[in-house]
Amino acid sequence: MTELASRATAEATVTTGPIPYSAKHYRPVEGPGAVDGLAVPFRRINLTSGHFDVYDTSGPYTDTDAAIDLDAGLPARPGVVRDRGTQLQRARAGEITAEMAFIAERESLPVELVRDEVAAGRAIIPANHNHPEIEPMIIGKAFAVKVNANIGNSAVTSSIAEEVDKMVWATRWGADTIMDLSTGKDIHETRGWILRNSPVPVGTVPIYQAMKEVDGDPTKLTWEIYRDTVIEQAEQGVDYMTVHAGLLFEHVPLTAERITGIVSRGGSIMAKWCMANQQESFLYTHFAELCEIFAHYDVTVSLGDGLRPGCIADANDAAQFAELRTLGELTKFAKSHGVQVMVEGPGHVPMHKIAENVRIEQEWCEDAPFYTLGPLTTDIAPAYDHITSAIGAAMIGHAGTAMLCYVTPKEHLGLPNRADVKAGVIAYKIAAHAADLAKGHPHAQKRDDALSTARFGYRWHDQFALSLDPETARDFHDEALPAEAAKVAKFCSMCGPQFSAMRISQDARDYASRHGLLPLAPSGDTVTAGGESPASG
Amino acid sequence: MTELASRATAEATVTTGPIPYSAKHYRPVEGPGAVDGLAVPFRRINLTSGHFDVYDTSGPYTDTDAAIDLDAGLPARPGVVRDRGTQLQRARAGEITAEMAFIAERESLPVELVRDEVAAGRAIIPANHNHPEIEPMIIGKAFAVKVNANIGNSAVTSSIAEEVDKMVWATRWGADTIMDLSTGKDIHETRGWILRNSPVPVGTVPIYQAMKEVDGDPTKLTWEIYRDTVIEQAEQGVDYMTVHAGLLFEHVPLTAERITGIVSRGGSIMAKWCMANQQESFLYTHFAELCEIFAHYDVTVSLGDGLRPGCIADANDAAQFAELRTLGELTKFAKSHGVQVMVEGPGHVPMHKIAENVRIEQEWCEDAPFYTLGPLTTDIAPAYDHITSAIGAAMIGHAGTAMLCYVTPKEHLGLPNRADVKAGVIAYKIAAHAADLAKGHPHAQKRDDALSTARFGYRWHDQFALSLDPETARDFHDEALPAEAAKVAKFCSMCGPQFSAMRISQDARDYASRHGLLPLAPSGDTVTAGGESPASG
Repeated sequence: MTELASRATAEATVTTGPIPYSAKHYRPVEGPGAVDGLAVPFRRINLTSGHFDVYDTSGPYTDTDAAIDLDAGLPARPGVVRDRGTQLQRARAGEITAEMAFIAERESLPVELVRDEVAAGRAIIPANHNHPEIEPMIIGKAFAVKVNANIGNSAVTSSIAEEVDKMVWATRWGADTIMDLSTGKDIHETRGWILRNSPVPVGTVPIYQAMKEVDGDPTKLTWEIYRDTVIEQAEQGVDYMTVHAGLLFEHVPLTAERITGIVSRGGSIMAKWCMANQQESFLYTHFAELCEIFAHYDVTVSLGDGLRPGCIADANDAAQFAELRTLGELTKFAKSHGVQVMVEGPGHVPMHKIAENVRIEQEWCEDAPFYTLGPLTTDIAPAYDHITSAIGAAMIGHAGTAMLCYVTPKEHLGLPNRADVKAGVIAYKIAAHAADLAKGHPHAQKRDDALSTARFGYRWHDQFALSLDPETARDFHDEALPAEAAKVAKFCSMCGPQFSAMRISQDARDYASRHGLLPLAPSGDTVTAGGESPASG
Repeated sequence: MTELASRATAEATVTTGPIPYSAKHYRPVEGPGAVDGLAVPFRRINLTSGHFDVYDTSGPYTDTDAAIDLDAGLPARPGVVRDRGTQLQRARAGEITAEMAFIAERESLPVELVRDEVAAGRAIIPANHNHPEIEPMIIGKAFAVKVNANIGNSAVTSSIAEEVDKMVWATRWGADTIMDLSTGKDIHETRGWILRNSPVPVGTVPIYQAMKEVDGDPTKLTWEIYRDTVIEQAEQGVDYMTVHAGLLFEHVPLTAERITGIVSRGGSIMAKWCMANQQESFLYTHFAELCEIFAHYDVTVSLGDGLRPGCIADANDAAQFAELRTLGELTKFAKSHGVQVMVEGPGHVPMHKIAENVRIEQEWCEDAPFYTLGPLTTDIAPAYDHITSAIGAAMIGHAGTAMLCYVTPKEHLGLPNRADVKAGVIAYKIAAHAADLAKGHPHAQKRDDALSTARFGYRWHDQFALSLDPETARDFHDEALPAEAAKVAKFCSMCGPQFSAMRISQDARDYASRHGLLPLAPSGDTVTAGGESPASG
């Protein structure tokens, strides 16, 4: 790893060790596709009685005896195959890959479902042949909704060490993928550090680096500069790349009367290029060559929405949907060339226009996984856009979006720091889980039930342990009742020791039992079935 | 105000003065219902060019020359009438009251709409004759979605001074009503301080105080103790009271197989009382007498959902909907006796079961305003339940809920402090505004458009000024670029000085204009109209 400057090595420190109440538990992969030594990590939450295993994105950093060497990078997993094409091609051939076997165990779903969804292009497994350090994961609406965290420096802020730390920190709290959106100095080096140490797939937007080659002047970009950047990044091991190939020259004028024009950086670069050169986008005209490169490394293409709306007023407009139609065409092309594809979506969208985005994307893009930024459901809350967008993210996840790109409290205002990264990831884990519940994901509600049972039983430590952020939950409880005795007491600071609603309802349960008044309907039976059917298996 | 101890007086300090970038602007009320001296407060946001007025809940505390005397309380508004019945009765008689005129100006909607919605019982104006200090407001689905903030002490935490400060603090950030849920010491005195100094309607749950009279033993409660408590609070000026009269003895066994039984404090008290006394709830059997008291003072009854679900598994179950059916019966009864009514709703509900709650409530309760606690869309995020519930609140607001009861980060863990109150209010202002946008409220999007126009034009100060929390937005921007020059610079810390997407899209706009390529479709035209129609006028 000679490319990594010693300066960065000396600076980089990351958070290690288990999250409170838990320990890493590896479950061996067995059956079709399994290879020796392949095991899936779970976070085993230890409860007062028994334990509860949850999906774990944090990699070896949360192992109890974590021995992390950032210079050496993470070890390669067993079963990496570099010479049999992409996961899509292998799935179509009926093969169950080691990655599919890993994912089936990780999601507790049948491995045939994994293979079939990948073969149909309804799900993707981003796993560059040159990125053997990752723990494989899947993005598709039949599976748990995923969360991406953006990190990366800009020309005015941040260092390599900070970005590596943010990567580890984001995956600790549940980020399923990371995008390195660096636009500042040391882009190649920063990415190298992140790739070699990341347990999750890494995405990039290659045009950001290509822009550095032309001193920031988009009009000077060429296909050759862009292609060389893509190859460099693919060689390094980037798992998916955002390509704004759907923004055509003819779409540019459609943005002219928007309130916020073109807010996507990649979109605005390509719009500028088309206008300056009076030519069709080179990303579109050279898309076939791009697909050849992507198929060679099994880089997933993430079709960028360069014309996504930047405000409520611009949502679902002609520009946005014109580009989406082209993304549908490109999806079909990429898939026919064996390339895994997902499609990016907005942005800023009022609630009543959210579901329409998914419906159209699914129809026009052959059910390719949808990957959306939020969307933000109002423009008026800078500093709280993790919340404005968690609302939209939960809803669009319910409607069928497969991965949600987080938004942090710093959106529109600055680059996120560590605290912002955590706030963004937690808000999006909430949105993703709420979506899984609403979709009727077969395993999602077990954790809610376990936590609520602990809550009803005044098992405070178990309630903290099962929460998305045990440290903060415990800290908040400690503010009012720091004594350890309060953690086992049958009351809380809201009600006080004299009174508790939950204690009384236990009496109600006992009463019903004694008087033979238990309801005839089974527990959990609902009066209405609701109007929506599960989108997942 | 002799009831207020000097101890409390000495301790109480509250936040005063305008929110940054703004000043109070009073607009005189004119036309039908107007009385001399009646004027509606707006927060006038001063922009680089011009200004933007927004709804203001903060009372005289944010006046530039705020001279607050907590001992004296706020002044009475002009036009208070005590001898002509309730707002409902007067609306039915065709009268336009001073409160209706005030509200029409405040909401920028026709005064006849205000009167007609109140007359139909689809909206309420909580305004006890003995609470002349408030600035009148309306709760109904034809109007802007409102937010309630709960405050109040418990047996283990908090003082009177803290609760008064929280009331002022919550209304500063946009709380439309306050509920004083005190269960600890000095209940009467705390409420007196809050009432005399609150610019917004105040709600209570009288059974909490009644419980103090019986030393916390619910089995010893009697109708007479409860009635005297209600009269005491009505005399003091409480504007609305939660009454759990819909929980019948026969409903109690329906909760026996729930995961979290009965989580409503009032609900569990009444369940315990019914079991211990083997009798029907005295709140139900004496509801007619309650209505007489409420009509006398124009106290609005808020029909409590004592059987609301306390976890995802218990949502929309037989117990919840059995009680809701009784609430429908009580709604009809109260209205027929001239009492204003709203109906409380859950709680914890997964996204796909949210809309059903509104549909049933509207059908069974004659479209009475729905007032929900969240709902939380998952159980697994204690310490972040302002977010889990903002998701549900935005959705249920879109579906027709008229007021959202906030949830703070401390929910399930402890009583909220100042920071939690602000976090809860802001999260719920986001949810309410997102709902207004989705409902197509005629004025809601103007603020989004103003902020986004400022953002696109790099008018940083205007962007902060128009946001829900100008201080935090500015602070976040300052973290990266503190210099004043950066506030007028045509770039941001995310993109750096060399590059900006928004600058390029301005070029696109210029290009389209120069080349005659402006789109034929009018600005804001959408490709699809979306499947939902506005719920508001």
